[in-house]
Amino acid sequence: MNLREITGPEALKKVPAEQLNELCDDLRQAMLTRTAAHGGHVGPNLGFLEATVALHRVFNSPVDKIIFDVSHQAYPHKMLTGRMEAYLDEDKYDSISGYSEPSESPHDHFVIGHTSTSVSLACGLAKARDLKGEKYNVIAVIGDGSLTGGMAFEGLNNLGEQGGNAIVIFNDNQMSIAENHGGFLGSLQKLRETKGADPCNFFKALGLDYLYVDEGNDVHKLIAAFEQVKDIDHPVVVHVNTEKGHGYKYATENKEPWHWSMPWNLETGKMLQEFGESVHDRTAEWLLKRMETDGTLCVINAAVPIFGGFTKPRRARAGKQFVDPGICEEHAVAFSSALAKGGARPVWFVASTFLQRTYDQLSHDLAVNSNPAVIVVCANGLSAMNDVTHIGFFDIPMASNIPNLVFLCPSSEAEYFAMLDWALTQRARPVVIRMWERGNTPATIPVATDYADIGKFQVAHRGKKVALFGLGAFFPLAQEVAAKLRKKGLDPTVVNPRYAGDMDEALIADLANDHELVVTLEDGVIAGGFGEKVARVAAAHGLKVLVKGAPKKFEDRFDPKDLLTRAGLTVEKISADVLAHA
Amino acid sequence: MNLREITGPEALKKVPAEQLNELCDDLRQAMLTRTAAHGGHVGPNLGFLEATVALHRVFNSPVDKIIFDVSHQAYPHKMLTGRMEAYLDEDKYDSISGYSEPSESPHDHFVIGHTSTSVSLACGLAKARDLKGEKYNVIAVIGDGSLTGGMAFEGLNNLGEQGGNAIVIFNDNQMSIAENHGGFLGSLQKLRETKGADPCNFFKALGLDYLYVDEGNDVHKLIAAFEQVKDIDHPVVVHVNTEKGHGYKYATENKEPWHWSMPWNLETGKMLQEFGESVHDRTAEWLLKRMETDGTLCVINAAVPIFGGFTKPRRARAGKQFVDPGICEEHAVAFSSALAKGGARPVWFVASTFLQRTYDQLSHDLAVNSNPAVIVVCANGLSAMNDVTHIGFFDIPMASNIPNLVFLCPSSEAEYFAMLDWALTQRARPVVIRMWERGNTPATIPVATDYADIGKFQVAHRGKKVALFGLGAFFPLAQEVAAKLRKKGLDPTVVNPRYAGDMDEALIADLANDHELVVTLEDGVIAGGFGEKVARVAAAHGLKVLVKGAPKKFEDRFDPKDLLTRAGLTVEKISADVLAHA
Repeated sequence: MNLREITGPEALKKVPAEQLNELCDDLRQAMLTRTAAHGGHVGPNLGFLEATVALHRVFNSPVDKIIFDVSHQAYPHKMLTGRMEAYLDEDKYDSISGYSEPSESPHDHFVIGHTSTSVSLACGLAKARDLKGEKYNVIAVIGDGSLTGGMAFEGLNNLGEQGGNAIVIFNDNQMSIAENHGGFLGSLQKLRETKGADPCNFFKALGLDYLYVDEGNDVHKLIAAFEQVKDIDHPVVVHVNTEKGHGYKYATENKEPWHWSMPWNLETGKMLQEFGESVHDRTAEWLLKRMETDGTLCVINAAVPIFGGFTKPRRARAGKQFVDPGICEEHAVAFSSALAKGGARPVWFVASTFLQRTYDQLSHDLAVNSNPAVIVVCANGLSAMNDVTHIGFFDIPMASNIPNLVFLCPSSEAEYFAMLDWALTQRARPVVIRMWERGNTPATIPVATDYADIGKFQVAHRGKKVALFGLGAFFPLAQEVAAKLRKKGLDPTVVNPRYAGDMDEALIADLANDHELVVTLEDGVIAGGFGEKVARVAAAHGLKVLVKGAPKKFEDRFDPKDLLTRAGLTVEKISADVLAHA
Repeated sequence: MNLREITGPEALKKVPAEQLNELCDDLRQAMLTRTAAHGGHVGPNLGFLEATVALHRVFNSPVDKIIFDVSHQAYPHKMLTGRMEAYLDEDKYDSISGYSEPSESPHDHFVIGHTSTSVSLACGLAKARDLKGEKYNVIAVIGDGSLTGGMAFEGLNNLGEQGGNAIVIFNDNQMSIAENHGGFLGSLQKLRETKGADPCNFFKALGLDYLYVDEGNDVHKLIAAFEQVKDIDHPVVVHVNTEKGHGYKYATENKEPWHWSMPWNLETGKMLQEFGESVHDRTAEWLLKRMETDGTLCVINAAVPIFGGFTKPRRARAGKQFVDPGICEEHAVAFSSALAKGGARPVWFVASTFLQRTYDQLSHDLAVNSNPAVIVVCANGLSAMNDVTHIGFFDIPMASNIPNLVFLCPSSEAEYFAMLDWALTQRARPVVIRMWERGNTPATIPVATDYADIGKFQVAHRGKKVALFGLGAFFPLAQEVAAKLRKKGLDPTVVNPRYAGDMDEALIADLANDHELVVTLEDGVIAGGFGEKVARVAAAHGLKVLVKGAPKKFEDRFDPKDLLTRAGLTVEKISADVLAHA
């Protein structure tokens, strides 16, 4: 079938019904070809392909509005809504994002990349429609683990009361990123076993109508089901039983690694590039060794075990000392706080972008109570994930301004492990540590073993006139700038601040005696961050301060190197600025 | 009965069974007497009194651990665990907090004041117990609306998988702060009607065992039920049907205003002090008027309608243009974002302390999408609620550093309404506005009608040498300081910054020409706040900067005036600091 003829939902609706299976096969092949070359989400899109064809066959997008939760399963939707070329033409692979994106198409309504929000968004769109007296279908697609996030419950519960047209497609692929978790899996299984007839029905308990579709990868069955609920006058959940990775052998046989993949060989299923042991692996092995002598050490991962390096075999080795509560970061924090209170030693691994989901738990459940839970922030900084919904710039402003919570930024892998060791030994404070994700090059300054003197910066070199504060990942940058400035006749002080949120006021007061300029470098956004705190303390002494970091802006699909250049975070620019000011 | 003899759970266990009803009556009377004189939570404690007696009769606290969600229903618990005097002796009324407080007693395990976290905390304590091979009961008490918060679902879902001993007491009083909300209320009602037999059971769907107690204010029935689940080897929910306000006529007849009350006359039920019309009332009337011509204006309140002034009669007037989704702040933000996207005009009223629960929704669902939803932050600043779990200091650092989100701080009530009017008229950006809660005194400077020039500060007076930036509620303080400094021969510039998170870099650069010192005043914590941003910009120009606000610290039951003095936020101290530096 010539996919180029499918220019949009109208064209799809003209395809003869008997050719729909062939169309699905061709869409699958095109999607796999692009994803294998480009990398991206594999299993979620393969599993939801038939359902997407059925949705666009039955509903009238963009008048009817389809909202994809996380939207990592929206590739087929993009193919069917005018963006087919991005899947067929190699030079257009990069013309689209990996998530829904209103700037690309009127068929996309929100930029989304975090889970469990689609039902709330659908609920709001439906309410706006009803207030305005308009008529259209609002459809939320959720699943693939997203239902374990509490906000999905909040949305469903509100929807059950709100009434009016709203259709929730629950994509039950029996997976999250890894295996799915939670007590409600048992009742979902019973619903599948009874073809939806089991009376103990989570969705009905929330006041929602319910329809079960057993063959969730059968496009014709799906069309029939969606036709049944189209234009419905009350909220309904369509529970669709799908196979994650459907139609691609490797992705169905081994679902976890095929959730998302770097480029691979379509025939063999082998990655094009081999990745060696990472800091995630070294972290997991370090913790597993520690578990041998500490039965209270407990690793927590909210549905992304790989952040802590906890592959399936390592999870088996950790046994009951590894907990995956599902996608529910808020619970993960309160749970960790209570583990610490109860005398265990919890360590939660989380991406910077998902730590954002827990501000209140960090503050109210953890920091106010000052329980010694440890949180390791992965995918942090300006060189981590680069989709606008997944950027790692905001963890410092978000978490480092919370009292009692110690926020540590290591300047090397050795220091990262030293901080982790200290954090898991002390019992006085909750500790957040940014994972060092820049390779295991040797530390260039002595690594401390004790970080209990909160806010005590490490002076790597005491010079004069100019001081360079290189926080965490940017400490080496500060060293490079210092080396360059030395060649220009300056003798800059170089500081490893270590603490993102607590200031070494004594050091800054002392520097004020023989320094004129302080430059701060941080691997994140400047608004609310480390440098502004230094500016507050230093400017009270009349020191001139230059705060360097990313501007307060959502960046999308950026090239990290380009971003660093634009932000003036290069040795050349920083040195030039220092020379201009000093 | 002599309540002074009830020195702890052991003494309670010795009370003959036939005297328990009398004991409950006496506890109720003492609790009411204190609360009427002191103010506090009324209905929640009255309704859960018998259950608390039963809990301490059956379980062995503090070895068995009882965790109260929100903990605003923990008064009877405090009375029974060694803190009776605080309820009997007027001079000791202030010796205890209104929430659970580990520093008061080993029977309290967490400082808690926000909802929906007790199940997660219990889940973590139970896991710690199991990792350590210890044996005790873990009991979470939840209800009074708390179950609508998504995190409660996350906790229940994890508990259903975790297994082991854990007992969730669901206090079903059919209320939240106001009436309860959500689609799952229907199934809870069916459970009550069928005495727990209805097969469509929300808790069982989450993999939890279940027990129903119909007479939840009958201490003997409760004791029997708790004895049944004591030492259970798997998680169980005990669904207890209680009456909010039980045993006090006024509180049962009119539940919403008796959730929490200022001091009142116990006999007549009349408040001791009359409160006139407040800004909350004026806000509601202003919005109701606007609704007459705008059918898309939609007021949202997550279970605390009074923040927006939406009393029961006003809710009736607003009709479908008022939405209470229950206690679920995350949903409220995403829902508002989608309302705005769908063409409606949402405005959500929330206390500063509860805005904290929505960082990720503010960023991901709202700001990334730049939908024009409006959020009004109530109970904000250093003079608002003063329990450590409810302080209003952190909204500026938490929300003002998020890109795209405009954070406005009015300098008068007139400016507050002008900002609200602008926010609800424009369609370009999401806007957060701090409610002006300091009385309707006339504005002392011209009030703008347009705030679209984001980050443009208003210069109230252009002087020289010293500039005072008084943000929002502290603008009058800046004016007072200026008046004092003028008497000392200075001519300070006075600025109404208006925007907490966006800087007027041009103004600061200009001030650098003929100023030496900038002083920032903000009604919140300094870490990550407004002043640090000013310091960043001003210190790059070599300006000296003094940032004034509360230190980075959780304050508990503080006297606002004392806090302001300690933080140096007085006319005298600020003036002295200026004179010392200038």
